[in-house]
Amino acid sequence: MYADSTIVVRYAETDQMGIAHHSVYPIWYEVARTDLIKKLGMHYSEMEAMGVMLPLTDMESHYHQAAKYEDELTVRARVEKMSAARIRFSYEVFRKGEETPINTGATAHGFVDSHTFQPINLKKRYPDLYALLSKAMEKDEIR
Amino acid sequence: MYADSTIVVRYAETDQMGIAHHSVYPIWYEVARTDLIKKLGMHYSEMEAMGVMLPLTDMESHYHQAAKYEDELTVRARVEKMSAARIRFSYEVFRKGEETPINTGATAHGFVDSHTFQPINLKKRYPDLYALLSKAMEKDEIR
Amino acid sequence: MYADSTIVVRYAETDQMGIAHHSVYPIWYEVARTDLIKKLGMHYSEMEAMGVMLPLTDMESHYHQAAKYEDELTVRARVEKMSAARIRFSYEVFRKGEETPINTGATAHGFVDSHTFQPINLKKRYPDLYALLSKAMEKDEIR
Amino acid sequence: MYADSTIVVRYAETDQMGIAHHSVYPIWYEVARTDLIKKLGMHYSEMEAMGVMLPLTDMESHYHQAAKYEDELTVRARVEKMSAARIRFSYEVFRKGEETPINTGATAHGFVDSHTFQPINLKKRYPDLYALLSKAMEKDEIR
Repeated sequence: MYADSTIVVRYAETDQMGIAHHSVYPIWYEVARTDLIKKLGMHYSEMEAMGVMLPLTDMESHYHQAAKYEDELTVRARVEKMSAARIRFSYEVFRKGEETPINTGATAHGFVDSHTFQPINLKKRYPDLYALLSKAMEKDEIR
Repeated sequence: MYADSTIVVRYAETDQMGIAHHSVYPIWYEVARTDLIKKLGMHYSEMEAMGVMLPLTDMESHYHQAAKYEDELTVRARVEKMSAARIRFSYEVFRKGEETPINTGATAHGFVDSHTFQPINLKKRYPDLYALLSKAMEKDEIR
Repeated sequence: MYADSTIVVRYAETDQMGIAHHSVYPIWYEVARTDLIKKLGMHYSEMEAMGVMLPLTDMESHYHQAAKYEDELTVRARVEKMSAARIRFSYEVFRKGEETPINTGATAHGFVDSHTFQPINLKKRYPDLYALLSKAMEKDEIR
Repeated sequence: MYADSTIVVRYAETDQMGIAHHSVYPIWYEVARTDLIKKLGMHYSEMEAMGVMLPLTDMESHYHQAAKYEDELTVRARVEKMSAARIRFSYEVFRKGEETPINTGATAHGFVDSHTFQPINLKKRYPDLYALLSKAMEKDEIR
């Protein structure tokens, strides 16, 4: 399963090279992650309100082609793997309608208690939430 | 009284016009505000920990000349006026060593309780903090 | 005439107060400005390619209520006034479906040559573009 | 050889988790990269003016501990490896005075012509610049 988010490159996101600055891709990944969780039937805000946060532990990003101001992009997010303690998302960024991504990346996160910031076992503590996120691991529907 | 902060324009802060994007000036103002409060003998983090927050209610910024990547700037912050309920800061941004500001601006803030987000009377609730901030209203030392 | 842009508050746009940081509103204004120009039948990228840039000279923003992560907002942009040398836009930010703006603001810009960065008389140099932007001054259609 | 840059976490860089958002670390890396090149005796702005740009092709970042508003950090940058076509920098972020990094990362860049955006052989085209950057590969001085 995956979720597609539409992003239009903002002027403020460009730099003096005339392209979208590399530091905005992680922000677009985050938009796509939010949309993926919403597609599963939950708001990430609700997860935080329940007491679960997903701070990043690792990020990688590979830039194949530049994006420019006003470019319309699709950011596709998937859950790559997941355990009771951790989750890893992967991303592909496409120019609208194209098949070859201009950027690919991944982020890894731990599940932590939003009050203590300590790691939690999501499966034990929030089995319903664990089950919900697990649904994202299902095979992509044939398009 | 005023505080001077040194800012070096970051690459990520430029846009495709080749200049520092206008939305970063409010962030530089905030750096200068933090330094001004520090100069008074307190960390803004401590104020928040005490239970006081200063959300912005109004901002204005006037751009006279552009700033470029790697430009070394001085951001000067002052308390323009203050009451028990509100505070207003003003800012001037200079190219290092120059006398004419390339940007001038101001921000107005209310004092709110950091838990309830409700307005507070700073003078009554935190008289010491009120006195401390009032010191910033003192006449600039002759240079 | 006005244009409405939809913005969903990004996680990265929040600060430790738990609200959208005030420096992102100018970025949302810019998105709305881009959409308004597009609605007039032109891309702002094309204007820059033609040789016209609109650097900001003045900005103001008034924050009435906070916006939170995942809030769905409408940013409404209008051309407030315009001359051969300058243009001023105004903005209102609404929570989706609400009538009272949570933020209002304005930005003023000069027309400059994108190569020399010198002011230009838009009416003389690009009469078609001047006419196009003037259309934005028309009375709002009755809704 | 390495360069150390001092960063103080800005309020705008925090998110609603109360920590510096992960997307700002790449921006801090860039500040450190700028300082490393300056330490070698050149401004990155001059490199761009000469006609050489270093767009990012790959980035990775590993978050060991969080940074908070007003934290004073040291960002250490090194050139990890370099060829005629590419360069790779590595980074360590420390809390001031600490020995264990709170974040580590790396960025890879290609050398491109700033007008055509095409890859260039830096060693052939700009032998002096190539020699200068190679100096950064020298063993760290014993402290």
